[in-house]
Amino acid sequence: MYFYDIIEKKRNKQHLSKEEIDFAVHAFVEGSVSKEQMSSLLMAIVLNGMTYEETLNLTLAMKNSSETLEFKEYLVDKHSTGGVSDSTTLILTPTLAALGVKVAKMSGRSLGFTGGTIDKLEVFEGYNANKTLEEFTGIINKINCSIISQTANLAYADKLIYDLRNKTATVDSIPLIASSIMSKKLASGAKFLVLNVHYGSGAFMQRKKDAIKLARVMVKIGNDSGVLTRACVSNMNVPLASGVGCTNEVISVVHAINGEQSNLLKLSKELCVIILCEVKKISSSVALKLVNETLHSGKTLAKLKELISEHGGKTEILDNINSVAKAKYKVNLTSKEQGYVKNIDARTVAKAVNHLKELNKDESTKKLVGVNLNVKVNTKVKPDDVLLEIFVNDKKHAEKVTDELYHAFRFSRFKTKEKKLIAKII
Amino acid sequence: MYFYDIIEKKRNKQHLSKEEIDFAVHAFVEGSVSKEQMSSLLMAIVLNGMTYEETLNLTLAMKNSSETLEFKEYLVDKHSTGGVSDSTTLILTPTLAALGVKVAKMSGRSLGFTGGTIDKLEVFEGYNANKTLEEFTGIINKINCSIISQTANLAYADKLIYDLRNKTATVDSIPLIASSIMSKKLASGAKFLVLNVHYGSGAFMQRKKDAIKLARVMVKIGNDSGVLTRACVSNMNVPLASGVGCTNEVISVVHAINGEQSNLLKLSKELCVIILCEVKKISSSVALKLVNETLHSGKTLAKLKELISEHGGKTEILDNINSVAKAKYKVNLTSKEQGYVKNIDARTVAKAVNHLKELNKDESTKKLVGVNLNVKVNTKVKPDDVLLEIFVNDKKHAEKVTDELYHAFRFSRFKTKEKKLIAKII
Repeated sequence: MYFYDIIEKKRNKQHLSKEEIDFAVHAFVEGSVSKEQMSSLLMAIVLNGMTYEETLNLTLAMKNSSETLEFKEYLVDKHSTGGVSDSTTLILTPTLAALGVKVAKMSGRSLGFTGGTIDKLEVFEGYNANKTLEEFTGIINKINCSIISQTANLAYADKLIYDLRNKTATVDSIPLIASSIMSKKLASGAKFLVLNVHYGSGAFMQRKKDAIKLARVMVKIGNDSGVLTRACVSNMNVPLASGVGCTNEVISVVHAINGEQSNLLKLSKELCVIILCEVKKISSSVALKLVNETLHSGKTLAKLKELISEHGGKTEILDNINSVAKAKYKVNLTSKEQGYVKNIDARTVAKAVNHLKELNKDESTKKLVGVNLNVKVNTKVKPDDVLLEIFVNDKKHAEKVTDELYHAFRFSRFKTKEKKLIAKII
Repeated sequence: MYFYDIIEKKRNKQHLSKEEIDFAVHAFVEGSVSKEQMSSLLMAIVLNGMTYEETLNLTLAMKNSSETLEFKEYLVDKHSTGGVSDSTTLILTPTLAALGVKVAKMSGRSLGFTGGTIDKLEVFEGYNANKTLEEFTGIINKINCSIISQTANLAYADKLIYDLRNKTATVDSIPLIASSIMSKKLASGAKFLVLNVHYGSGAFMQRKKDAIKLARVMVKIGNDSGVLTRACVSNMNVPLASGVGCTNEVISVVHAINGEQSNLLKLSKELCVIILCEVKKISSSVALKLVNETLHSGKTLAKLKELISEHGGKTEILDNINSVAKAKYKVNLTSKEQGYVKNIDARTVAKAVNHLKELNKDESTKKLVGVNLNVKVNTKVKPDDVLLEIFVNDKKHAEKVTDELYHAFRFSRFKTKEKKLIAKII
């Protein structure tokens, strides 16, 4: 078998067999295929696509390219395709754990303009996400949940291929995205998986129909591989909560747990309900009731404290979120217009926050910079009303992003019909 | 400007500007772009194509990536896209030179299953194709023609990109083939260029319509760049002459010059006529008369002798072609059937000859191996008639390719309507 022939087949829109895909992944991992040959194949896949069968085989080949984990117990995992102010993991994990569901979560760092769960957890001083596998299972057995960093050893082929895709403009492909996500998830040994696939300006997938397609492929791969899988496709055109940037997102999480209404809370609850229905075999209305009770009774917050303590993090700020360390300066961005907020573009806000992080050279204070939205879609504003607060350690940095941030806002003389948060449950 | 954005544009079927193409080629040559990024772009070009404008700009960018030659005089160049028993250069060059047309030809070695002019010239003991540019022009001034090896310095970007295409299955693309050929031709400084684009089993282009498309693009690039360019699209389903393999092809050349009818002679004359009409501003019937006179009068043969002598080669065999050094053994391949030869597949014959060359480990005798066809399409055969002779230095080698060679032949109870040799003049 020759790699050249495999490229040529895909270039000519032919299907690759399981043997060919196994050969290609194996040869690349062991180094007998060059990066230029693999990137040529990747571009051919981006442009000519893959059947479901090929996508499944690619997923399995990458999953089997390095170690895989096996847990005796019935564990729940959750994956988000990345969004803006998307911190559902920090609400869902303690809520489910408090309800007796074991959640084993390996999370990532920030990627592109999206935030990373591990970065947010490190807002809690001392949080250690680098636990051994033994410690990971030990914590889960003790408190029903743990969140650690993704180990580099799972789906090693995906790591190599992903690095290449990032340099060669071959990220944007449903078979490649689906196999990348699912190879890691299948290798991490969960028995139940819920996928949160976002679409819109603040997501990697721009169009709803692509997000639904991606979700369907991933759900089928999971279920065909023995992992009970569900997906929730949701709208990511507007940030999910008011805080963007690590510290501000943690503040939004605490407000949500304490009952402040936001899309972040709504989506977290929806994901909990999907999992509870499957795991406990109950109806969604019963599941929603359980979730609401757990949140209102303070059990979610208590479990979040336990989770952070078990990983060595300080939890005092959870009792008084206003005591969290903040950036030196708060600069207001004010409205120049009169009317209703029509849109707050998630990607623009997230990119501006990324620029603030780049400007803040001191690594130790990067987590403090960010923004907090004072308005939502359909908030009525007049000139000089505060649209958002910018948190910086150098006032000049705020000036550099004000124009950019102002462009995230659109105004209208009339109220806007809000788009549905949840587009589809699969 | 970022290379990533250029890949992404082509992936999204957008057009690349002149600035973007210049940047891409320049960045690759100077090494700031990785091979994997370039091969990703190449696959995107293969699958999403290029407009004529983009192809022209790619050609010019590659042409300008290293030194270019300039000749004061009006020089003729010819290029073939590669075929089987395609030795028109060795007939056309001395014929035109004898008619006062200056021909400056830089030729290549064998590529894939096709033969190379330089390899054939080296059948003449002592032929030195590695002349300096000064010697090259000196010889042209003296005898009106010279054939030397392609210098690696012309269109250096093409050399780098071609190496990559050969490994990444990105050869098969009209914009990439056209720009590769034309960048070298434009850099070599000819004022008039005739392109011989082959199609069929023995050519790189399988389909006539693709060959015509390629020829049209190249002719337009040449003319738009100040080089008067014409093309002849011809059928390469059957070998052009009876000899295949360096020595046998030289024998076929001498037979053709001496008047033996073959497609090789017919095509060589046609290419001469195209050039003479343009260069001397005469009609094709007058041009054909000049070509026939030159051939019949022995002037072509005399000029070929001069050409070889000037490059240090021995010419004795031109007086008695039977005296040429031959392989040790001649093994006959005979017919098992009765009827008319319906087809002799050019690619199958050429690949078998390549296998013979691979089996013949002694480099010094490789040129001697090959085959000579004893039949043509529509020759009437009966069992045990000789179809072709196999020339080898080890009889076992002949046995290894007899089945393969026999498969090149198709027979029929009836005569076949022969396909036209010349499909189109552009």
